[in-house]
Formats: sequence, C-alpha cells, structure tokens
Amino acid sequence: ATSAHPPVNLAVIGGDGIGPEVVAEGLKVLEAVTGPGAFATTSYDLGASRWQRTGEVLPDSVLAELAAADAILLGAVGAAPGATDVPSGLLERGLLLKLRFAFDHYVNLRPSRLYPGVPTPLADDVLDRGEIDFLVVREGTEGLYCGNGGTVRTGTPHEIATEVSVNTAYGVERVVRDAFERATRRRNKITLLHKHNVLVNAGGLWRRVFESVAAEHPGVTTDYLHIDAAMIFLVTDPQRFDVVVTDNLFGDIVTDLAAAVTGGIGLAASGNINPDRTFPSMFEPVHGSAPDIAGQGVADPTATILSVGLLLEHLGFAEEAARVEKAAVADIAARRGQPRRSTSAVGDAIAAAV
Amino acid sequence: ATSAHPPVNLAVIGGDGIGPEVVAEGLKVLEAVTGPGAFATTSYDLGASRWQRTGEVLPDSVLAELAAADAILLGAVGAAPGATDVPSGLLERGLLLKLRFAFDHYVNLRPSRLYPGVPTPLADDVLDRGEIDFLVVREGTEGLYCGNGGTVRTGTPHEIATEVSVNTAYGVERVVRDAFERATRRRNKITLLHKHNVLVNAGGLWRRVFESVAAEHPGVTTDYLHIDAAMIFLVTDPQRFDVVVTDNLFGDIVTDLAAAVTGGIGLAASGNINPDRTFPSMFEPVHGSAPDIAGQGVADPTATILSVGLLLEHLGFAEEAARVEKAAVADIAARRGQPRRSTSAVGDAIAAAV
Ligand SMILES: CC(C)[C@H](C(=O)O)[C@@H](O)C(=O)O
Ligand SMILES: CC(C)[C@H](C(=O)O)[C@@H](O)C(=O)O
Repeated sequence: ATSAHPPVNLAVIGGDGIGPEVVAEGLKVLEAVTGPGAFATTSYDLGASRWQRTGEVLPDSVLAELAAADAILLGAVGAAPGATDVPSGLLERGLLLKLRFAFDHYVNLRPSRLYPGVPTPLADDVLDRGEIDFLVVREGTEGLYCGNGGTVRTGTPHEIATEVSVNTAYGVERVVRDAFERATRRRNKITLLHKHNVLVNAGGLWRRVFESVAAEHPGVTTDYLHIDAAMIFLVTDPQRFDVVVTDNLFGDIVTDLAAAVTGGIGLAASGNINPDRTFPSMFEPVHGSAPDIAGQGVADPTATILSVGLLLEHLGFAEEAARVEKAAVADIAARRGQPRRSTSAVGDAIAAAV
Repeated sequence: ATSAHPPVNLAVIGGDGIGPEVVAEGLKVLEAVTGPGAFATTSYDLGASRWQRTGEVLPDSVLAELAAADAILLGAVGAAPGATDVPSGLLERGLLLKLRFAFDHYVNLRPSRLYPGVPTPLADDVLDRGEIDFLVVREGTEGLYCGNGGTVRTGTPHEIATEVSVNTAYGVERVVRDAFERATRRRNKITLLHKHNVLVNAGGLWRRVFESVAAEHPGVTTDYLHIDAAMIFLVTDPQRFDVVVTDNLFGDIVTDLAAAVTGGIGLAASGNINPDRTFPSMFEPVHGSAPDIAGQGVADPTATILSVGLLLEHLGFAEEAARVEKAAVADIAARRGQPRRSTSAVGDAIAAAV
C-alpha cells in the first residue's frame, strides 16, 4: 500500500445480474480517487446465483467477516424472472434486510437531486419552479420491515395473514435526530411523512418524537405531510422538499418515486448507514439486478459510482467524495444527445475525471 | 315525486370546509339528470364542525339512519389547520373509516383518467405514449386500516407503537374477484400491487388469491408490480395500467399519485362500494375539506359531480351516469385557457348539459 494509513477494508458484494458489472466501475472510480492501495477489497459471493448453486443465502461465517469490514459496497441481488425456484423474500429478508438489521443501518440515506441535463418525466412548468434537490432519510431497522407477522389457516379459504409494524421511541428518535442534523447542514427544512390520521399509534409516536427533536432545533423549519399527499407534491412541487424523514415502508415507496422524478433509478444512490459506527455501513444503488440486460455491458454504473461517493463521505474522505460526485455530475451533463456508452466506458470516463 | 318509482333515498353528508359547497353542485347535477323527485335527499350534519359544537362524531342513531339509505354522498370532513382541538384520527377513524367498515365498503373504486385538455405534471414524451385511463380497485375494509395496534410505555423513551395489517383470504378474494370482473368490462388487463418480497405473509396471501382468481379468467392478462416500482411506472408509463388492484394502504398512496398525474385531486372521484348491496355505498371526492378556500365559492365541484356519476352507475342508472360523465368531461375540456369559474357556475354548466 502506498498510503500512509493502513488500507480501508471494503467488503464487496457484486451480487447478481448487472450487480458485478456496476460494482466493477464503482471500484474503478474508488481506486482512481483514493489512489492504489488506499482500499483493500474482499469480494463475497452472495445472492441468487450462490443460493441456486449451494443453497446458502448468508452463512454465519460470512456475516462475521462482513461485520469486521470498514464498509460494504453492494451491487444488486435477485434472480432472473424465470427462476421460480427462488422463494419470494428469500434474498430480501435473508440477505439485504438481514444485513441492514444485523449492522443496525438505521439511516437509509437517499439523495434525490435532478442533475443538469437529465431527462425527467415531469413537465417544464413543474421544472421551472426551481432546482430539485432533497435528501430522504428513511428509517432502516423498524416498521413493517421487521418481519413480525405470520399466517394462520394458511392456504385455506379462511387464511389470515398479518404484518406488524413495530416502532420504538428509541428507533424513531435516533433517525429523526440524524435527519435534523443533516437538515442543519443543508437548507434547514425538514418534512415528516406519515399517515398519522389513520395509523394513529405509529403516527402518534413519530409525530411526538419529531416535535420534541424539532424543539431542540429552532433554526430548522418543520413540515408534515400525509404520505398520500406527499405523492402529489413530489410530482407537482418537488422543490418544497429539503430533508424528508419517514419510516421504512413509506421511505421505500417515496424514494422510488423520487428517483423516477430525478431521472430514474439508474442514477439513484443509497447508503445504509450506521451513524454510531458499531458496524460497517453498506452502500448500494437503488436499482435491482436487471437480469434482462445483464452480461451485455450496457448497464448504467452511475448510481453505484454515486453510492461510492456516499461511502467516501461516510468514511471521512469528504474531499474525495466531492470529487466523485462532481465528476459523475459532469459526466451526466455531457450525456445529453450523445449515443449511449457501455458500462465500462462510463466508469472509465468518470475515473479519468476524478 | 313525478317518477314512476319510489324515490331513491340518498343520505347527504356535506361535511366541513368546501364539502357542503361541492355537494350542492353534485346534487344540482343529480336532479338535472334524473328529474325532480327521483331522489329524496336527507342531510346529515357530521364532521369537525359538529364535533366542535356537540362533541359527537357519529351517534349510533345517525349510523342506523344512514344504514337505511340507498346510497350516501359525502363531501369532505376535516377541521381548519389551526383547530388543535380535533385529535388526529378522530374524524378519519371515527367517521370515514367507521362508515366504510360498518357498511362493508370493500371495493374502494377510483377511476384515473386523464381527460382531454387537462393540465398534468407529466412531460409530453410521457403523454405521447397514449391515453391514460385506468381504474384502481383499492381494498376498503382490511390491511393496516383496521385499527389493530397500540402503544406501550406511551410517552416514555421506551415507548413501542404497533400497527397490525390484517388480511383475510375472504377479504382479499372478494375484492380481487370484483377487480377481475371490472377488467373483463374494460381492456382485460389487471395489475396487482404489493410488496410480497418484504411483506411475505400478506403478500403471499394476496399473490396466491390473485393467481387463483386469474386462473378462472384466462382472458385477462395479469401483471404484478412491487409498490415501489409501481411509483416509477405511474409517472413514466401510466398507459400500462388498466385495472389495478391493491390493499388499503397501498391503494391510498397510489390513488393520490394517480390523481396528481391525471390532473389533480380536484377531478378525482371515488366510490366506497358494497357490491353485495347489504349496506349503502358511499361516494365522495378524493380531495379533502380544503379549509383555506372554504366559503369563497371557488372550489372545483367536478370530483363530486364525477362521484355522482359513479353513484348513478352503482344504483343502475347507467344511461344517466354516462350523461353526467360526458357532460363533466366536455366541461373540463372547455376550461382550457378560460378564466376560472365559481363553484356554482361549474355546477350550473354541467347541470345544463346533462
Ligand atoms: C429489495 C427490497 C428489500 C428493498 C427495500 O424494500 O428496501 C429495495 O426496494 C430498496 O428500496 O432498497
Ligand atoms: C382521510 C383518510 C382517512 C382517507 C384514507 O386514507 O382512506 C383519504 O386519504 C382517502 O384516500 O379517502
């Protein structure tokens, strides 16, 4: 290693489909910006393909090794659509969510910014209102995602299936607090999304916690929207948002819409962050494994490269993070009207520019 | 009554804010299209204002009277934003949802059609893909809306708040069956929205029921989308949808986005339908009581008038329903570039045209 510091240990999970292809470009940019040897990467073979070969989703020994890494970069996991052998939820609950929960990724960070030159499904009069640049802080360890539920009389005409949303004051407060702190480093505006008029128990808790943390941040303007009303504003007035904080499921829904509005999930980055650094944080593009275009070298690696930017920022490489984002944004802006480039050509171009 | 039949008993709940204003226009159009005396209306004073005056939300005696009606037309309920005396959920859980549950409104019907001439937040290249015309069939009596949940250690740093989504094979099957039947009367395409990769219990039930009802309808093309992915398609390719079927909460979220995409909640109609006719169905605009513009005579009554169209259709007045929709659509088309008219001017124009 040429670096003065010991290398950062980065665990890499390429995953399935286009996952390994986009991750390769992310690593290319990472090396270009930090220099050779600054990061030591270890690859882990996890995902649908491993499960199909070995029957293993996430062996305990692998979980233990991942726990010892400084950070994790993940591509995407998921089988080809025809693969009926992969049970629904196997990889989601058994791998992705298992990692988010095991490593206490309570801040699921999803920046939503419409970069110059990016086509969007929104009309000009919406775009004319101003720049779209907000940050969704999605709770990552609770709510309906905790897997609390079951079925009785399964498969009969009298089956009952339940799903329990579990929300704790501890869990809500820590993510709300993180979101307020991020707001103070941005435009000092925060919007809580929930549905407290129907989900009175969970919504009541979120609201009370939000208001009490707000009282400690008098410089931050607060807003509240029901999740259904938020849908409307996301397409008619996305400029009203700066930091958005919400629960796990609402955050899942809202961030895909936010990604669509800001140019598609091909550009949407995310960080599954453990702000207390008790376990490694994990960075991944919001898109999936896209088996239909896998192996063709045509997947857009930009979301993964932007996720590498979030990873650098989290690890304290603020200057390198800014360079990655700047180079990616310049590359995105230069795409307009140009023929589509290959996955590696995009990676090469951004790596050359950082 | 001049009609040969005894009049239809219509219960009318104007509600709060703009509710009574838009309902008055709905009734104007109803009388114009069915002739005087075809409907006998009884008004019920319910909503925030009644609660503030009397402390009553929905007295049992009123519930019993409503149960005896042939149908219900509702404007909107909800207090002015400043009214901190109205507890969150009081009117939603205590009135709206109470009626939906008591009268077994398991089909919450929300047509989403972009009428000619209506401004939308979507870009031209999305609109150029073709007509947007789909129907959301939202389950209305189960899921996270059932009010099953609670809090422990309330108000302490160790509070836990839960919300339980309850889904029964009985409840899912009846709404899925209704949705398939509607698809056969439309373009024979149906899309299930859920999140079965995370909510494996509820999602598994929905999926199995959907597939078994699909097997009985070989002429209907089926599709499945995770709710997050559906967000993307709603703004990039809404033309892919014909009938959409989903649970109560996902349906709430998706129909507000659908309304935004098709010109806003000022045009979005809904029917809370009991297809078995064991209790009256209830028709209401998707929008709320909009206290900020109440009393000014400027609210758009179109969503309520279109809801009257759904009411007529449900009651078997198919020809009258078609006339109401046609007159409303023609009026909407004629609005482009014209100055905004008053609430009653819009009602007058549509009433004159039916
Ligand atoms: C794949 C799935 C488990 C995941 C989620 O629901 O969180 C994905 O949609 C995401 O947003 O990262
Ligand atoms: C007011 C509220 C209870 C209601 C719902 O969530 O169903 C509304 O949003 C709707 O969509 O009709």
